Amino acid sequence: MTAHSLVCHTMMTTVPDPGRRDAPALSSVMLSTDKSASFPMRPCACACFANMEVPRGSVRSTSWDSALLQRVPPLLTDLYHFTMAYGYWKCGRHNEEAVFELFFRDLPFGGGFSLFCGLQDCLHFIRNFRIKPEDVTYLKSVMPSTIDEGFFDFLREVDPSSVSITAIPEGSVVFPKVPLMEVRGPLPVVQLLETSLLCMVNYASLVSTNAARFCLAAGSNKKLLEFGLRRAQGPDGGLSASRYSYIGGFHGSSNVLAGKYFNIPVVGTMAHSFITSFSSLKEVHPSTLISEHGEGPPVDLVKLSVFWLNRVCSHLHMIPEEANKGELAAFISYAIAFPRNFLALLDTYSVIRSGAVNFCTVALALCQLHYQPVGVRLDSGDLCRQSVDLRRIFHSCSTEFQVPGFKSLVIIGSNSISEQSVMEMKEQENEIDIIAVGTNLVTCPLQPSLGHVYKLVQVNGKPRMKFSEDPEKTTLPGRKAVYRLYNNDGHPFLDLMTLKEEPVPTEGQDVHCCMLGGQMETVKAARVELLLQEFFSLGQPTQPFLSATEIRNRVQTSLIHLNPGLKRLQQPDRYKVAVSERFASLLKDLKNRKDWTE
Amino acid sequence: MTAHSLVCHTMMTTVPDPGRRDAPALSSVMLSTDKSASFPMRPCACACFANMEVPRGSVRSTSWDSALLQRVPPLLTDLYHFTMAYGYWKCGRHNEEAVFELFFRDLPFGGGFSLFCGLQDCLHFIRNFRIKPEDVTYLKSVMPSTIDEGFFDFLREVDPSSVSITAIPEGSVVFPKVPLMEVRGPLPVVQLLETSLLCMVNYASLVSTNAARFCLAAGSNKKLLEFGLRRAQGPDGGLSASRYSYIGGFHGSSNVLAGKYFNIPVVGTMAHSFITSFSSLKEVHPSTLISEHGEGPPVDLVKLSVFWLNRVCSHLHMIPEEANKGELAAFISYAIAFPRNFLALLDTYSVIRSGAVNFCTVALALCQLHYQPVGVRLDSGDLCRQSVDLRRIFHSCSTEFQVPGFKSLVIIGSNSISEQSVMEMKEQENEIDIIAVGTNLVTCPLQPSLGHVYKLVQVNGKPRMKFSEDPEKTTLPGRKAVYRLYNNDGHPFLDLMTLKEEPVPTEGQDVHCCMLGGQMETVKAARVELLLQEFFSLGQPTQPFLSATEIRNRVQTSLIHLNPGLKRLQQPDRYKVAVSERFASLLKDLKNRKDWTE
Repeated sequence: MTAHSLVCHTMMTTVPDPGRRDAPALSSVMLSTDKSASFPMRPCACACFANMEVPRGSVRSTSWDSALLQRVPPLLTDLYHFTMAYGYWKCGRHNEEAVFELFFRDLPFGGGFSLFCGLQDCLHFIRNFRIKPEDVTYLKSVMPSTIDEGFFDFLREVDPSSVSITAIPEGSVVFPKVPLMEVRGPLPVVQLLETSLLCMVNYASLVSTNAARFCLAAGSNKKLLEFGLRRAQGPDGGLSASRYSYIGGFHGSSNVLAGKYFNIPVVGTMAHSFITSFSSLKEVHPSTLISEHGEGPPVDLVKLSVFWLNRVCSHLHMIPEEANKGELAAFISYAIAFPRNFLALLDTYSVIRSGAVNFCTVALALCQLHYQPVGVRLDSGDLCRQSVDLRRIFHSCSTEFQVPGFKSLVIIGSNSISEQSVMEMKEQENEIDIIAVGTNLVTCPLQPSLGHVYKLVQVNGKPRMKFSEDPEKTTLPGRKAVYRLYNNDGHPFLDLMTLKEEPVPTEGQDVHCCMLGGQMETVKAARVELLLQEFFSLGQPTQPFLSATEIRNRVQTSLIHLNPGLKRLQQPDRYKVAVSERFASLLKDLKNRKDWTE
Repeated sequence: MTAHSLVCHTMMTTVPDPGRRDAPALSSVMLSTDKSASFPMRPCACACFANMEVPRGSVRSTSWDSALLQRVPPLLTDLYHFTMAYGYWKCGRHNEEAVFELFFRDLPFGGGFSLFCGLQDCLHFIRNFRIKPEDVTYLKSVMPSTIDEGFFDFLREVDPSSVSITAIPEGSVVFPKVPLMEVRGPLPVVQLLETSLLCMVNYASLVSTNAARFCLAAGSNKKLLEFGLRRAQGPDGGLSASRYSYIGGFHGSSNVLAGKYFNIPVVGTMAHSFITSFSSLKEVHPSTLISEHGEGPPVDLVKLSVFWLNRVCSHLHMIPEEANKGELAAFISYAIAFPRNFLALLDTYSVIRSGAVNFCTVALALCQLHYQPVGVRLDSGDLCRQSVDLRRIFHSCSTEFQVPGFKSLVIIGSNSISEQSVMEMKEQENEIDIIAVGTNLVTCPLQPSLGHVYKLVQVNGKPRMKFSEDPEKTTLPGRKAVYRLYNNDGHPFLDLMTLKEEPVPTEGQDVHCCMLGGQMETVKAARVELLLQEFFSLGQPTQPFLSATEIRNRVQTSLIHLNPGLKRLQQPDRYKVAVSERFASLLKDLKNRKDWTE
């Protein structure tokens, strides 16, 4: 990321309110006393983000819904789904009921868990799944000329009215091989959904999991912001990244469109270009500011700053001439534009000799006019060392000039932050309150894709299975029920797949199961949770849509219950996944039959 | 990638033609004789793709244009651009002319070159750059309440009528530090464009460069297909990947929407699910097919296949019972649906004992009816070894059963293909004609982001510069002309930046220049090319928009001229970039001035 000086605002309602002019701007919030004493943060940063929680609500932005349908029309899929659909139609199998499962085989990032995200987008897509006449025309132009016209009539009539879906709730912690979605409906219709669903789930789950890992690495006393739009993989890579980073635990995004669509906190800052665009104090115009209390005549902030520049330099043993005057002009102009939101970017010239001096200068002038400056952002060099130096300067100025507000200035770090560098921060002395992450969050360089697949498990009531040359690619046939078993400490310890018709495992009683891998085990659950729930029945959603914040809350809850060993970022424990005894013996049966599908 | 059996079609016009029913389907093309004798490919594969070249034309799909504007509205940017725009507006600087440059600092993938892509999307975005009233309302709701109402009036009036752009043509080979775009216009307006432009250029350039590297790795005797939609970083990550992989040199994509929007060849295949959905020959209905010549009564393809199954097994010393009957049913059904496009996926059960046997069975039945089967796809295991085994089987069947067409069957490989595995293929004996690449193409795991930046270089005619703590981040100030110098062999050997007002370097004469890094050199160019051209002037594009195929052609031309040492994928030569003597001395001057911006 290149640049930002924080202006942070919260939407207090679930939809934008054009009439609202009293959004708690960061600097005004910063002035408020920290009321959540249990919150282990520097008060300012705490206060700054304490109001970022968007209230509960189940509103989905209409503009996002229509944007999603624009971005993911039924043609956003692989051509082979249409050729196969013709294959099914041609042999009269278009009314056969098929069941597909969506799952993944390996945990991302070598971690101990994954998050399941993207479900709501999928449901919205399916609810509106109809192929437009112009798209049928396009398909005719690219499919073989031997295709019967009747197939295109069939495509024109395709709708989701016979499709049903069960799924694990979005935002849940999930594990390999367990079905995350079961999609049931007419064979060609559910076949047509494959690539679009995978596309909506894969990146959403990947980036939310990546975000959750950054949050775990940072610990609970630092806040995280997503600044990755410019480096994302395409415009929607940026938009999805903002939504799902927030859901994964980040506290806000710089992406304005994401703020508008998903009602998530948007945060903004200052660029180096803003600073380099100024070259002299003469460019500050107007140069006056009225005090926060509205008392007295407007004060010339340039003159006041020049006064403070000399005092600051004298106190810090710095040379006023080394403080870049273009930078000072930029800071003063920004302070006049945003007197309650003054947060400066310090590394355009020299962080300490110019940036810090100019910041303290303008911040002290603002304090004299009863405004509370917000803080600073560092975007190059050794962020930890710089933050420690800055904190010392802030404390020293606070004492010297009797400005208590200087003790609660926020320090933001943002230069090429990675999971690794966040973990290293823990080992080093630092005074960073907020970390802004770009490229390494949104593009997930440690593993830039998550391999969800969508496999046929049943047709016309008969289980289906793929035996691959690669045993890892062999699928688990048939419809399943999936249960999560919790131990006495409230931690989940096993995901159990049973045949659909088997009884629910009883809490407190022995359950015999076969671990994926082979060995039999007997376990006892203090609590049993049904994982696959109905979300869509015969063309209609059966549960209300949730806001991004509500899904984010589920992520938090899901992670809190997870055993700490599974949340270790390096060499985590492995979570167990098993099938029931009956399922295992059916599976053995099928494998032993030479040509079992007959 | 999971699955596909190739059905490949070409659009012969630049816009879809709903009336056209004679698109050259792959298998029909496969039957045609190879007329391009100089094309170093297996005739079938050659013929298959020879018609994939879309004719020249400068049509941009309207549906894509409107989709782009939907996907990239002015709000798809970072909030700080709006806060800084207010800073400029507040001090009356909104009419000052600013110049920003877009460039990158390091070549991607440790390679010797990068491609510049995304320009047309940027131009289309800027041409339509206006902030909707509803978006201004949203901005008001998230920006500080202290902002003057006049600023929002200003935002409502913002348009691109004062913006001008010079750029290097899209699809060109480019190098670090050289400006790829120069954006000139009112300070706050060109500031507002920053993140959107970076977002459109970064991934487009990255994935097209990645695609070009795959093509270089594969060599000219293999064709490449993009199958990455399901693993892309968000729906648009998939759409952009399809467009820019094609531009980078791929021959087609599985993405239907990309085919529709960009008029690029779409290719489709068969999934494992299609095969596992069949369990018995009884499911083949109808089971008859008329011969390609339309002569005689319909033939029962099931019976004919059973006849061939025994002959094939007897010839290949295989056991008919080991050939999965569900798979055979699927192949027969597919052949009936696509008799001219029969290409089967072989690895659902056992590649040789089941897949190859069933394929040869159905393909021979088709041949008996005078259809030409297309080929096979392999999606797991050791692709090279399997391809060699298959080719031997095809040749043997060709001789035994007197079917010459079996000598030109296409073999497609598609399992987790990476740049590395494509390079390794060269070292191993293999018979793969076409490689389909998914995840490792579209998500660019070797380097999932490209760090283009957008830096202010001039305001009101005065050069601007950022001196960072990190010398790498120091910018080159002022407006520039950029020239590419070619040697006598027609290879470019130096990109030269001069001050805008300097004369064009003369061909054949000594040019003194200062390499980035420091040392002075004198060079002589056989040819000098002006790199930065005007593309947009005062709100209007000044050059026609190109089709994806035209940009793809520029990539090919640009790469052909490049010195082979720069195209080496590992440890390539380094291309030289320099500034003119005058530029270098101005730069030295600026650096020596302590506070040069004053």
